Amino acid sequence: MDDRIIKDIEFIVELDRMKTILRQTNLITEDRREDDAQHSWHIAVMSMVLSDYSNEEIDVNKVIKMLLIHDLVELHAGDTFCYDEEGNKDKRQREVEAAEKIFGMLDSRKGMEFRGLWDEFEEMETPEALFASSMDRLQPMLNNYYNGGGSWRKHGVAQSDIYKRISPVKDSSDRLWEFVEHMIEDAYNRGLIEKR
Amino acid sequence: MDDRIIKDIEFIVELDRMKTILRQTNLITEDRREDDAQHSWHIAVMSMVLSDYSNEEIDVNKVIKMLLIHDLVELHAGDTFCYDEEGNKDKRQREVEAAEKIFGMLDSRKGMEFRGLWDEFEEMETPEALFASSMDRLQPMLNNYYNGGGSWRKHGVAQSDIYKRISPVKDSSDRLWEFVEHMIEDAYNRGLIEKR
Repeated sequence: MDDRIIKDIEFIVELDRMKTILRQTNLITEDRREDDAQHSWHIAVMSMVLSDYSNEEIDVNKVIKMLLIHDLVELHAGDTFCYDEEGNKDKRQREVEAAEKIFGMLDSRKGMEFRGLWDEFEEMETPEALFASSMDRLQPMLNNYYNGGGSWRKHGVAQSDIYKRISPVKDSSDRLWEFVEHMIEDAYNRGLIEKR
Repeated sequence: MDDRIIKDIEFIVELDRMKTILRQTNLITEDRREDDAQHSWHIAVMSMVLSDYSNEEIDVNKVIKMLLIHDLVELHAGDTFCYDEEGNKDKRQREVEAAEKIFGMLDSRKGMEFRGLWDEFEEMETPEALFASSMDRLQPMLNNYYNGGGSWRKHGVAQSDIYKRISPVKDSSDRLWEFVEHMIEDAYNRGLIEKR
């Protein structure tokens, strides 16, 4: 049996645990939290639908790949709620160590490809990374908006924090930003978020 | 507000329901069924890991896109267990009607792109569609193999039916096929599947 295939299968089996790592965001139609696998799928398809709206020309295939693997580090580092200041202090270090571990399961060529995509996503400098980040941040907001406030209400999140969190959309797509501003203002008017 | 964006967002909100459509396959580490979103994510990443093993040169970006959207028809047609003869009789018709409905939510250019990917996947004729189908069929088998028999044992699935179901792998990758044969024989030897 091919040793490299055995390693690949071990990695694929490990991926299954992404279906058990819960995020703070709730589903839209059911009152329960979504997991990393569901979230990653949702934003990958979102990028297929919305990539046309990017201000800059982007390689949507790279965006999709980034989004599919951007949360794999959570297999070891767990999910950190984006508005949790304490948990975010050592997030970067925990995730870098997790990246070594998870991408190290693959042979070096493939491991480097995956690690490269993750690094690019994290650095948020290329137009692809910026757009990918926009999808990653827009999706939980859409869920909160359409499920009656979700984690915004549960954690009393302030409008100013939401604007900060969603800022990659402003930098990557004028047309999506128009929608986002409308959504956040409406969420405030409906009492789903607090103005602080 | 841009009308096309409103339609896109409605489509994206509809996608969220994929997280509630349960399949017959169980997770590997927890005793519960996986859903369409989790499954679609898992096989998209699998294709990133395994595409090198395809006998023919393939466009992995197209494979990924196909896999991300291949089950969207289940938003209206529901999940049909692959070994359910009765349910599979009208599956094709139910899914074509569902495809009209779900891809019809998008503007015509984007709707046609998505429909084209789904049609190509369903026809299973191009090397990309064949490889995508291999991923779609291999993943539940990996889950069953690594979770102690899962839906194979629950439904008493026969080895001959499993070989029939997994045949796209035989047609698309000699190297993966070697692994699959080994896995199925071992599953039989360990009593996870029946020889009929």
